[in-house]
Amino acid sequence: MEFHVRQAVYQRLGRALPSVAMAPNPLLVNVSARHCHLTQDAVETLFGKGSALTPFKWLYQEGQFAAKETLTLIGPRSRVISNLRILGPCRNFNQVELAYTDAIALGFDIPLRISGDIKGTAGAMLMGPSGFLEIQEGVIRAMRHVHMHPSDAQFYGVKPGQTMKLRIGGPCGLTLDGMPARVDAAFKLEVHIDTDEGNACNLQPDTPCELTK
Amino acid sequence: MEFHVRQAVYQRLGRALPSVAMAPNPLLVNVSARHCHLTQDAVETLFGKGSALTPFKWLYQEGQFAAKETLTLIGPRSRVISNLRILGPCRNFNQVELAYTDAIALGFDIPLRISGDIKGTAGAMLMGPSGFLEIQEGVIRAMRHVHMHPSDAQFYGVKPGQTMKLRIGGPCGLTLDGMPARVDAAFKLEVHIDTDEGNACNLQPDTPCELTK
Repeated sequence: MEFHVRQAVYQRLGRALPSVAMAPNPLLVNVSARHCHLTQDAVETLFGKGSALTPFKWLYQEGQFAAKETLTLIGPRSRVISNLRILGPCRNFNQVELAYTDAIALGFDIPLRISGDIKGTAGAMLMGPSGFLEIQEGVIRAMRHVHMHPSDAQFYGVKPGQTMKLRIGGPCGLTLDGMPARVDAAFKLEVHIDTDEGNACNLQPDTPCELTK
Repeated sequence: MEFHVRQAVYQRLGRALPSVAMAPNPLLVNVSARHCHLTQDAVETLFGKGSALTPFKWLYQEGQFAAKETLTLIGPRSRVISNLRILGPCRNFNQVELAYTDAIALGFDIPLRISGDIKGTAGAMLMGPSGFLEIQEGVIRAMRHVHMHPSDAQFYGVKPGQTMKLRIGGPCGLTLDGMPARVDAAFKLEVHIDTDEGNACNLQPDTPCELTK
């Protein structure tokens, strides 16, 4: 709908339609602060039998939310990150996503992984109000990525898993390489970067961004 | 000397000399963790009358060092950064250089500035073993920059103050835009980025880097 309105405006102005204005969906770039994903079992261990995650803020991807519940992460040198946000709904594995700055502060050596690919990664101790849970693996730096609807993938000319670039403008601008496209009919066009990446370029709501192959 | 050796090797291989191998000096990219610069007066206020900074580790730029002395930075919400490294020798102004990740953790709103340009920036309280010093301004995020000898500037074809790009490779590679060239006969070729930038791309000693206009 909005696409047609935009097209109409450009036609009235007598100018060629810029390719970005022809994109089926607007581009959102969001910074993911450190967070974790938990199984339902883990939630009950940490928050008590029968507990469930409570939505605190709905995220841009359909059905995803930041939970009211947070936990404490205890790293290998007994250093701690408090108030680590949990994202819901529950998954079938436990995963902690940190920025390298967080990992260095905690004394972790964490690998760069695509979310969900946690085999052989470092573990950690999690602490909730009702108990502790030691995870044997799952602490990663999540690789930057693009969520795309198939219509977005078609517009940008990329296949699932293919990498893209994001140019971020402003006085400390940069271009991020190697961002895999994750394509699903349930996805809305959104780039996820972490706080190191967001702070490196001081990403603000009005910072211009351009997604390319 | 080394340049001639490299040239000879390429000639023997019968290949054209790549332009980077013809550069007069090797490219170093170093990550500056948060630190501060102090006046001699500030050193005496914080560490005691007659105190001086003691070199702990010499840096790549001639005469610059990380001092043994560190201080505590107290931010506006009484949050603290301990063991803030002081770089020597003393300057004629006090300046604290933080990454945005640090500034957000402390509750500062700090501007991006070229080192030395601190007018109108936020102040902070500094604490040393012998006293406190409140600075009225000087807390910045230092803009990424390139130190260059005039021979480097000539090779890369840039004038003082002109901006350059740095492409950093690897699995979370990126290209940093807008890096001003600081040219001086006393400088050795070196790019300075901060921890947000270094961690965004996981810069390691063997990460390939390419400097271009």
